[in-house]
Amino acid sequence: MPKARLEAFSDGVIAVIITIMVLEMKVPHGAGLDSLVPLWPVFLAYVLSYVYVGIYWNNHHHLMHAVQHIDGSILWANLHLLFWLSLVPFVTGWMSENHFAALPVAVYGGVLFFAGLSYVLLTQCLVRIHGRDSRIARSMHGDLKGKLSVATYTVAIPLAFVRWWIALGLYALVALTWFIPDRRIERAAES
Amino acid sequence: MPKARLEAFSDGVIAVIITIMVLEMKVPHGAGLDSLVPLWPVFLAYVLSYVYVGIYWNNHHHLMHAVQHIDGSILWANLHLLFWLSLVPFVTGWMSENHFAALPVAVYGGVLFFAGLSYVLLTQCLVRIHGRDSRIARSMHGDLKGKLSVATYTVAIPLAFVRWWIALGLYALVALTWFIPDRRIERAAES
Amino acid sequence: MPKARLEAFSDGVIAVIITIMVLEMKVPHGAGLDSLVPLWPVFLAYVLSYVYVGIYWNNHHHLMHAVQHIDGSILWANLHLLFWLSLVPFVTGWMSENHFAALPVAVYGGVLFFAGLSYVLLTQCLVRIHGRDSRIARSMHGDLKGKLSVATYTVAIPLAFVRWWIALGLYALVALTWFIPDRRIERAAES
Amino acid sequence: MPKARLEAFSDGVIAVIITIMVLEMKVPHGAGLDSLVPLWPVFLAYVLSYVYVGIYWNNHHHLMHAVQHIDGSILWANLHLLFWLSLVPFVTGWMSENHFAALPVAVYGGVLFFAGLSYVLLTQCLVRIHGRDSRIARSMHGDLKGKLSVATYTVAIPLAFVRWWIALGLYALVALTWFIPDRRIERAAES
Repeated sequence: MPKARLEAFSDGVIAVIITIMVLEMKVPHGAGLDSLVPLWPVFLAYVLSYVYVGIYWNNHHHLMHAVQHIDGSILWANLHLLFWLSLVPFVTGWMSENHFAALPVAVYGGVLFFAGLSYVLLTQCLVRIHGRDSRIARSMHGDLKGKLSVATYTVAIPLAFVRWWIALGLYALVALTWFIPDRRIERAAES
Repeated sequence: MPKARLEAFSDGVIAVIITIMVLEMKVPHGAGLDSLVPLWPVFLAYVLSYVYVGIYWNNHHHLMHAVQHIDGSILWANLHLLFWLSLVPFVTGWMSENHFAALPVAVYGGVLFFAGLSYVLLTQCLVRIHGRDSRIARSMHGDLKGKLSVATYTVAIPLAFVRWWIALGLYALVALTWFIPDRRIERAAES
Repeated sequence: MPKARLEAFSDGVIAVIITIMVLEMKVPHGAGLDSLVPLWPVFLAYVLSYVYVGIYWNNHHHLMHAVQHIDGSILWANLHLLFWLSLVPFVTGWMSENHFAALPVAVYGGVLFFAGLSYVLLTQCLVRIHGRDSRIARSMHGDLKGKLSVATYTVAIPLAFVRWWIALGLYALVALTWFIPDRRIERAAES
Repeated sequence: MPKARLEAFSDGVIAVIITIMVLEMKVPHGAGLDSLVPLWPVFLAYVLSYVYVGIYWNNHHHLMHAVQHIDGSILWANLHLLFWLSLVPFVTGWMSENHFAALPVAVYGGVLFFAGLSYVLLTQCLVRIHGRDSRIARSMHGDLKGKLSVATYTVAIPLAFVRWWIALGLYALVALTWFIPDRRIERAAES
């Protein structure tokens, strides 16, 4: 089964997710600076979520580039990843409307956690059908970064109840480590 | 007429449908657990509808993979299927906002019924233009699962007025049988 | 300049338009039949607009199928068509929320008029760059149906102020004549 | 790394942005002309933003047409451009709901400024990886128009606090100069 439509559908879903988030930023009624200022947590959360969804699209792009064929299980592993990403606009809105209260920040981390987990799962499904010696398997071996991200979320989520900015700082840190697209695949693709 | 644009357009519409449903989950105003709890029917309905739309996309993907050419009637049979799918976010929102009251659950089933029917119709249009001996005709012969699904909805809809969870259970059961993508086509494609 | 991206972008925009219209159908607050009944004008208008946008997608598909190359002017002629189509959800919502009052029905017709006109314009731009002897020129000669549609809208719009259902009936009539995709191009493509 | 998915994703995001803007035009409650008239600033702003997003799509189309390969840095330079474009519906809504008050008009210009800047940046990233002698480098040399646009925004933004229509007029002027797609690339492509 070719991968073209999986890519096209994922592009479509991620494109809608990334653009729909901006709808959470309700147009303020006043025209003064004072009506724009209360939007700062909404804008900050939007930027973080935009970067996160952008990272997932970039990594998806890199990952699928190394893929040769797919099957029915990949379709569902991919839909599973898109499910958690589809919740990002909701938790972004909830977190920012409540000015980074403990529970919403933790739930936001929970969605990141499951998105990270489902990405690791998708990777493993792809490695399984391509074989241990495939390019995708070699480029992914260990997948330390993916597993470390999920581990960091596990630490960050309870910390949201101590100080919200510790949790958010850890989320941002993980984003930073992923900001650079997965060189491992690029390198493996070149060799 | 090539099938590429039909696939691209269907991908786009289904991508928007699946992501727009999450907009029905209104961001709660409080930051506590008590403001999240009332959302459980909305979340449950979202998961069910997400799985359903995911199933349709998967089956559409499998079906179109076996298609060699299309004509004007296929364009409309496909738009007809997308029409019923486009109503899924509306009935999902209505059903969940009313905590699975009888009528909304029945209407939700009605949309599933017509979506199922229009998928069977699309299949038959495709078989007609490919001929009785084509790969798509062989892989679809009888199309028992499609017809059984539609029959199950017919039984489930009136049962919504007895107990809502019987109807919803039957909808979920049908989803389960479709969760596994259509092996018939995969098998026919391999032979 | 190849036509692939023009098709992909148009597919995306039309997919969003056709799905966003359903957002105008606000989920009713009650769970009874009495809360569903007032939605009939909204649903009727949704069906009409869905068919109209579907027709434009079908015809766009047929038209672009015959196109060999495009240039900058085609990009803008196409964006111009998409502009009028993007107003369809707005006028659909306005017309149905006011139960087919005269002015909204006339404005709805106005948007159809300009969409029809911009489609004729797009066709003429394509004929111009392909030459008088091209397949697209032969299949389009006269473009009677396109011009008749625009003429019918011109008659229907003032009639909206006499009886709304005369205007709406004429819009539906035009839709019916377009329901069958443009056989002219299909025939020219075969010959 | 091939450019196909970058194009498909950008098409998707821009398609959603351009269509979502129309959602800012709230359906008026009355059916008379008097309920339509207050919408004129909203409609005017919608037209301007539609043309602007259309220009970006056209130029993106022209630019990517000349591109042969991309890398990870291009993915992010492109996402950066899409980020600023994704803010266009928000600032369009804010500006028009406040009838072109000084600050919203200035902020609207600010988003145009950063979108323009990020386009220049994307261009430079592409030139860097293709080399000084590449087609894209030759067609872009100096990129006077891109830099002049950014300079004009810098002048226009403070003028929004003097008279809103001077700033808006300058934004419209820049749009006009870009309305004609980038002939430089078309010419270079032909030679």
